[in-house]
Amino acid sequence: MTADMFIRLTMLFEEYGRLLDEDRLEEWTDLFIEDCLYEIVSRENVRQNLPLSLMLCDSKDMLRDRISALREANIFNIHVDCHIIGPVHVTPADAGWDASSAYALYQSTQEGQTRLFSVGRYHARVVELDGVLRFARQRVIVDTGAILTLLATPI
Amino acid sequence: MTADMFIRLTMLFEEYGRLLDEDRLEEWTDLFIEDCLYEIVSRENVRQNLPLSLMLCDSKDMLRDRISALREANIFNIHVDCHIIGPVHVTPADAGWDASSAYALYQSTQEGQTRLFSVGRYHARVVELDGVLRFARQRVIVDTGAILTLLATPI
Amino acid sequence: MTADMFIRLTMLFEEYGRLLDEDRLEEWTDLFIEDCLYEIVSRENVRQNLPLSLMLCDSKDMLRDRISALREANIFNIHVDCHIIGPVHVTPADAGWDASSAYALYQSTQEGQTRLFSVGRYHARVVELDGVLRFARQRVIVDTGAILTLLATPI
Repeated sequence: MTADMFIRLTMLFEEYGRLLDEDRLEEWTDLFIEDCLYEIVSRENVRQNLPLSLMLCDSKDMLRDRISALREANIFNIHVDCHIIGPVHVTPADAGWDASSAYALYQSTQEGQTRLFSVGRYHARVVELDGVLRFARQRVIVDTGAILTLLATPI
Repeated sequence: MTADMFIRLTMLFEEYGRLLDEDRLEEWTDLFIEDCLYEIVSRENVRQNLPLSLMLCDSKDMLRDRISALREANIFNIHVDCHIIGPVHVTPADAGWDASSAYALYQSTQEGQTRLFSVGRYHARVVELDGVLRFARQRVIVDTGAILTLLATPI
Repeated sequence: MTADMFIRLTMLFEEYGRLLDEDRLEEWTDLFIEDCLYEIVSRENVRQNLPLSLMLCDSKDMLRDRISALREANIFNIHVDCHIIGPVHVTPADAGWDASSAYALYQSTQEGQTRLFSVGRYHARVVELDGVLRFARQRVIVDTGAILTLLATPI
């Protein structure tokens, strides 16, 4: 049971990172339930108990709007993401599972220059709908708060 | 079944990275079938549909030759690799499986200076021969095209 | 059997990295048996067969002392760790398992600046005590020897 959920949640996290890396942002939003919460917060703000988010979408519609806006606006500064996701930590939760993992996100320019953009940890609440795992909540706590003024796409 | 293949392919990718990291290049070639294809291409070239490869070996013999040449030539500029490989995405394919994963490759000098050398994604076709998984094809699509003039060892 | 141990050891390595990242160092020491060995060595020293360690604790008590000292001394230079751990390689060993994995360790300042601190490989001997997996030995071979004068917390 634990082993099975470990693998299924690992596959979900893998899909999450891959869809972002392949710029399939619309499909990425489909990994969330309608009544979802997606949030990026800095570890420093979490530590100080500050409510400030670097990105906050409290429904799937809001996520979709964000992606649509990106599609229209982000003509310049085009980069390619590469998510490296570590092993997933799974614990049972109310009506689902809590799943977390460390990540490192690299961004490359079209000229092939790569830089580390962000490291941190995913803290997800995952639920099962019709036999499929979906994110009810994804809270990304970033260690790298300094460069996130450049934050455009999800992490 | 899926869970089992997920683990077996993860182990294969792990071995792939570890053999490179431990400079066991001859054993690394043994992960491929005789009639294999190993290719490194930049994401930018893939996007523009350009046929140019950064490295291309279309048989195991050619891979072996490449490794032999490295053993004789690469006396200077000795570095140590460290591959960090993310979770593997598996889909059934003709007579085997397609397996992909993100990777980050670090290189360290003998003096212990480390730099990020390349990030990107492995796109493999894997087949089973006598109960053992082997690469029929490994296509490495690199996001980091800029520094690959320095490309000597496989990624 | 192999699949099961692969998952269990992956979970152990995940916990190892997460407890360090969350500054739960006392709980991290509880992943070791009393009569343990924890060692950090540079790959260069291993290659030259030099016995020098960058960190060496040959019992759990010594690990605990080290953590206590850190708690009292390390008021300045506070950083946050992020461990990205690759897939685990498992082989049966005397009364347990040998398990290894590549890792990348990032450190971030409180201001949110992140840098790569160390890459290398974990080489662990793991045993089962009362149904729980614990480290009998953890030997960290670091590729990044150059910056480890700054080594304070475990890797």
